[in-house]
Amino acid sequence: MNNKIFFGIDIGGTATKLGAFNADGLLLKKWEIPTDTAESGTKILPHVAKEILDFAQDLARIASVGVGVPGPVLHSGYVKRCVNLGWGDFNPARELSALLHGVPVFAGNDANMAAMGEYWQGGGKGAHNIVFLTLGTGVGGGIIINDRLIFGQAGLAGEIGHIVVNPEETIPCNCGQLGCLDQTASARGIVRRAELLLKTNPTPSILRNVVTLTARDVFDAAKDGDPIACEAVRTCIGFLGKAMAMLTNILDPEVFIIGGGVSKAGEYLLNIAREKYISYAVLSDQRAKVVLAELGNDAGIYGAAKLAMDSLR
Amino acid sequence: MNNKIFFGIDIGGTATKLGAFNADGLLLKKWEIPTDTAESGTKILPHVAKEILDFAQDLARIASVGVGVPGPVLHSGYVKRCVNLGWGDFNPARELSALLHGVPVFAGNDANMAAMGEYWQGGGKGAHNIVFLTLGTGVGGGIIINDRLIFGQAGLAGEIGHIVVNPEETIPCNCGQLGCLDQTASARGIVRRAELLLKTNPTPSILRNVVTLTARDVFDAAKDGDPIACEAVRTCIGFLGKAMAMLTNILDPEVFIIGGGVSKAGEYLLNIAREKYISYAVLSDQRAKVVLAELGNDAGIYGAAKLAMDSLR
Repeated sequence: MNNKIFFGIDIGGTATKLGAFNADGLLLKKWEIPTDTAESGTKILPHVAKEILDFAQDLARIASVGVGVPGPVLHSGYVKRCVNLGWGDFNPARELSALLHGVPVFAGNDANMAAMGEYWQGGGKGAHNIVFLTLGTGVGGGIIINDRLIFGQAGLAGEIGHIVVNPEETIPCNCGQLGCLDQTASARGIVRRAELLLKTNPTPSILRNVVTLTARDVFDAAKDGDPIACEAVRTCIGFLGKAMAMLTNILDPEVFIIGGGVSKAGEYLLNIAREKYISYAVLSDQRAKVVLAELGNDAGIYGAAKLAMDSLR
Repeated sequence: MNNKIFFGIDIGGTATKLGAFNADGLLLKKWEIPTDTAESGTKILPHVAKEILDFAQDLARIASVGVGVPGPVLHSGYVKRCVNLGWGDFNPARELSALLHGVPVFAGNDANMAAMGEYWQGGGKGAHNIVFLTLGTGVGGGIIINDRLIFGQAGLAGEIGHIVVNPEETIPCNCGQLGCLDQTASARGIVRRAELLLKTNPTPSILRNVVTLTARDVFDAAKDGDPIACEAVRTCIGFLGKAMAMLTNILDPEVFIIGGGVSKAGEYLLNIAREKYISYAVLSDQRAKVVLAELGNDAGIYGAAKLAMDSLR
């Protein structure tokens, strides 16, 4: 087994990342190919299979493969629909396994795979129970309990972005609810909050000079003490703290790991998130650690490889 | 092993329930003794040990013992404090094991034990992922994922009553937050909502004739079509539906099991809970079943026995 290779694959709408790992979990090589979504995404897995076989040379060297997919995946690997890739009523794990002449293949949702990667070799290393939150354009996540990824009965588990946190929201979330975490602690949410404050609050702000505001602009201005930017960040990250407090009452994890583009705001964001989390998590004597993700865009290939390893046990 | 006995013990503030089960999970006998909380609760476990030994006759017949405790319990069995029993900085699992000359003893929170019981032989029979909600004076709960009870790092997991659901709440919950499920979908919450409506809404209602209102009065009147009672129930159980929708986004369980005194309202309550849950759980294609608990006050002894059985594996 020791010279065998585990592959972690992260299929995105435009690019597919691949990672080859040895049995000790060491990343041997990582690379990227374009995702060809033409013809209902039927070319995607043959391309992936070719890359895996080219790297491994010998089929017998492939231990197993894990695949992250941008949408809900059942524990069985079944995908009901994946709009970004053109897939529907499809089992990518089974298909890829057939293309690899029976090599075991396991699939999961991409945010869940990233959670698994961070649990394994990132911000959650050594913990058994973690919640991963990815703050990007929207808010996603993944949950590991007792060292196992939670899929849920229909692959929906870990949709942390749709915890309702903001009672004052007036515009529906794309999920249909009002006041989801996704609407506020995301890049989109932070920009929207800053724009709202700029309109309704006459306080001078450096953000008034920015033509197309980004979350990064808001964080940079907040770090410099800009009052509008500070208020926007504290409000949005306050809702993140509220969601983490709810998750503590429900799951009582050891660590919250914050990843995604917004997490580039680093310790500044983390300190506000911790402060707000602690103020809301009143039931807990022993609150979870709140840390930054460490693997960046590679979290998905790490997590997919870990799923592949664990599934063989 | 087959003639060995597993004990499930449910220690409450006033009474302790005991159940003896065979290896097939059949309840052989159940009985109850008073809980003597004098002398910082130091008499409780010796009394329990005596009952167990009297029933088993022979120490060698006792396979293992599970104990439910009214407060947070760590996976190790450690209890930081349990106000109702007078315990603090105490490991009841270890103590009871010593009193039983080394028989394996495992402990858990009482609501979690009830969840385990309902998962095993009650409303969740056959499912692998369930959420149990107990609607009593307050709201408690327990979560089983991949056939294992979730303890959390500090025994807090399953505190579902402290999910924040009501943005219009003005009085703090006893946990310090505003708008907890505990404040609304509990017996106390339903009575409070009805009383508020009676004060602020001039509509005639049979409830105006009741001197000391109970949740049962409100449900009975609602079933008879009383408009104030109907509105109180729909609002309070609506918040239950909202909490279940959040739990679906987070954990995507197969079944929600509703227990506790309020669940005696039966199918009437269940139908409203299902309708509200479905209206909120917009992300889910495949929503969880919503069922009534089946074991009543025995859920705790069933669950404690199941914990004892599983922990031996």
